[in-house]
Amino acid sequence: MTVDATGAAAARPQLIREINERVLLGHIRRAGPISRTELAGLTGLSKPTVSAALGSLERTGLVHVTGQRTGVPGPAASLYEVRPEAGFVLGLDVGREYLRGAIADLAGTVRARLSVRTKAGDAMARIQELVDLTGTLAAEAGIEVTQLTQTVLGSPGVYDPRLDALTLTGRLSGWDSPATLAALRERFGPSLMIENDVDAAAIAERVHGHGREVESFAFVSVGTGIGMGLVLDGKLRRGSHGVAGEIGYLPFTEGSGSDPRDARKRGGFDASASAAAVVRAARRAGVRGAPTAEKVFAAAARGDALAAAVVAEEALLVAKAVCTVITVVDPDLVVLGGGIGQAPGFLEAVTKHLRQLAPVLPEVKASVLGTETVVAGCIAAGVDRAWQTLVGNSA
Amino acid sequence: MTVDATGAAAARPQLIREINERVLLGHIRRAGPISRTELAGLTGLSKPTVSAALGSLERTGLVHVTGQRTGVPGPAASLYEVRPEAGFVLGLDVGREYLRGAIADLAGTVRARLSVRTKAGDAMARIQELVDLTGTLAAEAGIEVTQLTQTVLGSPGVYDPRLDALTLTGRLSGWDSPATLAALRERFGPSLMIENDVDAAAIAERVHGHGREVESFAFVSVGTGIGMGLVLDGKLRRGSHGVAGEIGYLPFTEGSGSDPRDARKRGGFDASASAAAVVRAARRAGVRGAPTAEKVFAAAARGDALAAAVVAEEALLVAKAVCTVITVVDPDLVVLGGGIGQAPGFLEAVTKHLRQLAPVLPEVKASVLGTETVVAGCIAAGVDRAWQTLVGNSA
Repeated sequence: MTVDATGAAAARPQLIREINERVLLGHIRRAGPISRTELAGLTGLSKPTVSAALGSLERTGLVHVTGQRTGVPGPAASLYEVRPEAGFVLGLDVGREYLRGAIADLAGTVRARLSVRTKAGDAMARIQELVDLTGTLAAEAGIEVTQLTQTVLGSPGVYDPRLDALTLTGRLSGWDSPATLAALRERFGPSLMIENDVDAAAIAERVHGHGREVESFAFVSVGTGIGMGLVLDGKLRRGSHGVAGEIGYLPFTEGSGSDPRDARKRGGFDASASAAAVVRAARRAGVRGAPTAEKVFAAAARGDALAAAVVAEEALLVAKAVCTVITVVDPDLVVLGGGIGQAPGFLEAVTKHLRQLAPVLPEVKASVLGTETVVAGCIAAGVDRAWQTLVGNSA
Repeated sequence: MTVDATGAAAARPQLIREINERVLLGHIRRAGPISRTELAGLTGLSKPTVSAALGSLERTGLVHVTGQRTGVPGPAASLYEVRPEAGFVLGLDVGREYLRGAIADLAGTVRARLSVRTKAGDAMARIQELVDLTGTLAAEAGIEVTQLTQTVLGSPGVYDPRLDALTLTGRLSGWDSPATLAALRERFGPSLMIENDVDAAAIAERVHGHGREVESFAFVSVGTGIGMGLVLDGKLRRGSHGVAGEIGYLPFTEGSGSDPRDARKRGGFDASASAAAVVRAARRAGVRGAPTAEKVFAAAARGDALAAAVVAEEALLVAKAVCTVITVVDPDLVVLGGGIGQAPGFLEAVTKHLRQLAPVLPEVKASVLGTETVVAGCIAAGVDRAWQTLVGNSA
């Protein structure tokens, strides 16, 4: 949006100045480092107007001069760039065993990153650990906590407006209480944004992973929990009630590790195919010394036939879930993520079943992003939000 | 798009005239009956330019004067409207037992409608029956077949560009042969458009049914065949390979009417829940005198306990499919269609299971559209396409 003399005739001069500054900020973000003359050309604003706006943006610390353009005729031109330090974004990932976090500047450069094993026994203790983690991260990044302009928390579950609480929060005990959300808001302030953790991972996949190359993909995460982030036409689809991608609720109950009580609490597919279900299936099959899904997979890789059968059954279950996604939305690409989804050889086993099951076989890949995926997605979403706040809808 | 003196400086006068006519046609379609003065106001074209373009459109038969606006100061103004007879659209629905068709004018008014029971033993005979049906419809509508400007065929299956043939065509024997598509093209000419039959029904639901009220819905059709039309953000989603909504391939195989051979040919859910599967389940359960799904449902309604158990199992299977759609895309609304989907009481039985299974319960309704749904969707899609052809992208 550019404001010219005609359109601005009735607006107050202060408002016009603000709008012009936002327009310039958007252009500087996209095209910077950039000169005053180039900005005037791009926006249609006069050079004196551009100069005045740049001065104001420099005084508030949003932009700075990053160098001079020389070697062209005429006097050297100052090049303007957004000051990365004009805002800081905190990304947090709250899991059952680990809390992870990072602080990035407005350019998306990560200034500090940290993972800790959680010792919290309840939701309030977990929130305190997140607050402590934030303090440590800020100290490492060399900033004050008050300099954080946007916080994004990647969390299991989705927001339920009727309850004003998170719901479908899986294995985080007490995390779906309204008191939890209230405490999070109180401790992290008004810039707090909560993003479903698997959706955050899908955003990371879109920005840094396989999702860069396509317009539609499903990020299917299988590990401690189960979920999907669905990107259609380049946009994360949350659904009419925020539950799009809650594939833990797929009505599959046939796995040998299935558990009816778990199915009622977290959905049929979760109860049949999560890491806990793999452990149950292994125990029921008589696999010894495999108290975690990771160890069941390791035993299978070493040639333990019982463990291999459990892993084979898990691959079939995940293939059924992927087949379901294909029959419903038919994306360009399916990305497998999570501890189980990214296990060596698992992709090939799933793909083999899909050839039999699915009406068409899209590209299926394993994510190459690591344990920092949720935090990376939170940072990407947070930087975007911080920019929206700065430049409004004109960016 | 409006062409003014500046933009048009380099274009040839003939091209400018055509563009102006298209722009006017688009406005007349949306706003007609409408006067010359109003059209000049809407388009920014001068009154003499509008008059010349209207004269040309009248001569080619695309618009006509439909009346005079009186009672306002000044001379009475002629009101222009698109001539509904400027184009005719043929919609066809090819099923296993019935062929249905209709011819509508450009305003979407149906001029003739017909259903016939097919006697065809193979694809070529079926195509000949469609050609005969078209001839009868044209005669009833009082037009020549050559006056048809757009034909839309609702058919099972999706187009496979690698084979240049339809694929996943279900129970229509020979319909997936490349020769079938070639023969259809030869008999129906270059305006032939083929639309998946369940997608066509979803379009009808969007234009005439429950889909009018929402931005996203899933039309789940269960009857002789099984399929889904998915409308997200107001747009039919076909998927990256055209198979979005092919929910016959959902990997459910637990129904007592399930059949492994059928599952390989048409998908697990189709083999467990189609009308044929209901008949198999009834036979296996010992229900007597129920050679069709309709009769199994009727027996259940009369109080036959064995038949009632089959219907109850069918409701659970369909609820699982709907639960799947909810967990993947979470639409505003789910519409049940098809002979089984619209059976009395079936909606309530499905909804009861959904309350247990699904992470959230969206609106679920039974379609109130009848056997003409696919044809109605083909007509709606065809009228849209005919307009696009007439007014290009300016409409």
